[in-house]
Amino acid sequence: MELVDVTLMLAVVFILAKLASAIFAKFGIPGLVGEIIVGILLASIVINGQSIAEMLGLFEMVDGTREQTDMFHVLNVIAELGVIFLLFSVGLETRVKDLLSVGKAAMLVAVLGVLLPFTLGYAYIEYFQDGNMYHAMFLGAAMVATSVGITARVIKDMKLTNAKESRIIIGAAVIDDILGMIVLAIVSGMAKSGDGGINIVDILSIAIMAVVFVVVVLLFALKCVPKIHDYMEHRKQLKFAEDNNYLPPKFNMLIISLAVCLLFSWLSEFIGLAAIIGSFLAGMIFADYAIEWGLEAKIEAINTLFVSFFFVYVGLQVDIAGLTTEVMIITVVVIILAIIGKYVGCALGAKLGDKTLDKGSLNIIGIGMIPRGEVGIIVASIGLNITVGESSAISPELYTVVVLMSVITTIIAPPLLSIAFRKKYKPEYEIQMSDQL
Amino acid sequence: MELVDVTLMLAVVFILAKLASAIFAKFGIPGLVGEIIVGILLASIVINGQSIAEMLGLFEMVDGTREQTDMFHVLNVIAELGVIFLLFSVGLETRVKDLLSVGKAAMLVAVLGVLLPFTLGYAYIEYFQDGNMYHAMFLGAAMVATSVGITARVIKDMKLTNAKESRIIIGAAVIDDILGMIVLAIVSGMAKSGDGGINIVDILSIAIMAVVFVVVVLLFALKCVPKIHDYMEHRKQLKFAEDNNYLPPKFNMLIISLAVCLLFSWLSEFIGLAAIIGSFLAGMIFADYAIEWGLEAKIEAINTLFVSFFFVYVGLQVDIAGLTTEVMIITVVVIILAIIGKYVGCALGAKLGDKTLDKGSLNIIGIGMIPRGEVGIIVASIGLNITVGESSAISPELYTVVVLMSVITTIIAPPLLSIAFRKKYKPEYEIQMSDQL
Repeated sequence: MELVDVTLMLAVVFILAKLASAIFAKFGIPGLVGEIIVGILLASIVINGQSIAEMLGLFEMVDGTREQTDMFHVLNVIAELGVIFLLFSVGLETRVKDLLSVGKAAMLVAVLGVLLPFTLGYAYIEYFQDGNMYHAMFLGAAMVATSVGITARVIKDMKLTNAKESRIIIGAAVIDDILGMIVLAIVSGMAKSGDGGINIVDILSIAIMAVVFVVVVLLFALKCVPKIHDYMEHRKQLKFAEDNNYLPPKFNMLIISLAVCLLFSWLSEFIGLAAIIGSFLAGMIFADYAIEWGLEAKIEAINTLFVSFFFVYVGLQVDIAGLTTEVMIITVVVIILAIIGKYVGCALGAKLGDKTLDKGSLNIIGIGMIPRGEVGIIVASIGLNITVGESSAISPELYTVVVLMSVITTIIAPPLLSIAFRKKYKPEYEIQMSDQL
Repeated sequence: MELVDVTLMLAVVFILAKLASAIFAKFGIPGLVGEIIVGILLASIVINGQSIAEMLGLFEMVDGTREQTDMFHVLNVIAELGVIFLLFSVGLETRVKDLLSVGKAAMLVAVLGVLLPFTLGYAYIEYFQDGNMYHAMFLGAAMVATSVGITARVIKDMKLTNAKESRIIIGAAVIDDILGMIVLAIVSGMAKSGDGGINIVDILSIAIMAVVFVVVVLLFALKCVPKIHDYMEHRKQLKFAEDNNYLPPKFNMLIISLAVCLLFSWLSEFIGLAAIIGSFLAGMIFADYAIEWGLEAKIEAINTLFVSFFFVYVGLQVDIAGLTTEVMIITVVVIILAIIGKYVGCALGAKLGDKTLDKGSLNIIGIGMIPRGEVGIIVASIGLNITVGESSAISPELYTVVVLMSVITTIIAPPLLSIAFRKKYKPEYEIQMSDQL
């Protein structure tokens, strides 16, 4: 693997991804969809018997099967860093206080929004398709998580971050992710043990560690961070009163926050959760002072560089050639189940959790929870890397199904969500729109 | 290679590097020195028979020799990206116009500052040491380049960017880098051909391509970029005059500049130069509007994340155990030659190029060109990766010598340079210092 080849691969992937993202965004479709499609095309467009991805050195053909190269693993690491920083930036925008204020409703939305899709996905594969329990479990797990990133971006673009529904959606999406990770930990634990069972102690320990990790971080963000901040401010003023020429020591908050982000990502993986849970929680620690410390803009710059590599990487692993009529039927069914499962589960949860919500609000919450985005894909790619017996815990066909399901739910949610919001908040929304002009 | 291990490695390297950097900066020593030392320590501190670098998965012992792992190659790519973006940010601060205004003096400083150190380094190894021509050539080549980064940072910190000496130093350092890359291309071309000779056509074609690349980019930056900028501004105003509600299309200049940076890095490697020359030139294209487009702060954030990995990577390859008395003597001699060669060569060049410069100015220019920083190390690591016969084109001992030479020249230059500047610009400098308080 020569560095000149790595530079070429990175340059090509970056430029194509950004172009596709810009074109899709022009038509109101989230840019990440364009980036995934670039990945799919790189892997499937064949020129002179070689796919473009092969020419870039990402795959090589060994005895007629496509194998990942060292270059692919480099892209894998860069993609992983990309999704770590993406969730870090979402965490930066998520204040613990806001989450807790909608705690009960968000919790019910999240729990029902996990149970229903998982059950539907599991049952479909177990009873109507190949009946492979691992496939069923991984498909179910991939249908569980809501993409905080997509949802948050739509709400942010509509300037409705402070609407009650928005806070419930964000809160539920976060809890969803955590529940989803616990589901993933259990499912992958069972697949790794391979005998269809799993040590109950393992499940419990993962669940307990996950909850402890989350609670400790939330408490730290809520109780300690403001005190540290105020203490530092107070000391600065005292010193300044003593000596007019006093220059406060410059703490580079970007460095500190990046260090916490990397550390939490590792810690999270270390205790059995996904790295992104750690980086998301790391972001929440700094959320209250993200703007004061100039973190948001800086992490945004890092994301601009990194995040596209993740979505291209996702697309690269989609096997378009394997998309037979049968797989397409499964895809359509799974997409319908994914939409119904989330919509019904979450609207029901919201109704039970907060009686004051009207139909319009329930509609917003149901739609807002539909997009699976990156999280479902991450679950599926983890399944693809676990071997049970002689095959992977999720079949390549089902991996493709999951990616398509994530892409389609991600494409349809933003326009539906903005329609639902506009229906309820029409007057204010129009005012805010005209403010922009 | 598990992702959890990659995350741990990145977190540990990042945190230690930033801590060391902060501690060194507190004592007025450039932070990168601390980062290199972290790398050296990670590779040499042994606990229970394993170095820390081995524990992090960066090396493994195979039959008693240390071998690089896949994890090491991942760090290698990240380090390479780090130095690419570092030089990109230096390019962003280098305006073509300022360079051309001191053209003649800078050119002579650069040429003599290349010839003298190369000759001294080459002659020392060829006639007083092992006599291996490749070793001699690579040592000479590593002694050639001036670190634009270090020099520019000192000048920037002292707020003397617009002093004539500063512009000559920066201009000469840039030309130096380009000459250094041509020397490197020739030297590595000869080493790769392995028979001690090189096709004169190859040398000429590399030199011509290098010059064409540089000239085309400089002309584009000088002539085309302002026109494109003005045309866009003009069109925006026309459209706005037609329609008060007109929203100009948002070009994300960060994305465009990163794309150019990656593309030029590859192009530069492709035609036989180092990637950093390409990223540096890419930076220069955007230099005139770097602040207007908000690029400097954003690239700074990316650098904060990346650049430390490069210097730790540099330190990891230093073999402290191989530092025998003999190697230490060579190191001391090489450092003395490196300092004398640059100081005398550059001061002489400045005197010949601009008769109006007084002794104080020549002193500033001579000292300002001393630090080798990252470029010498890059040359040496390229030599380490080229095999001639049965060994690498530069011996591991000489690699260590080069790293130490770079570190020492980098440490001593900043304090000496600020003394020399203060001697000449005392009154203005004091005023500027008090402005800061």
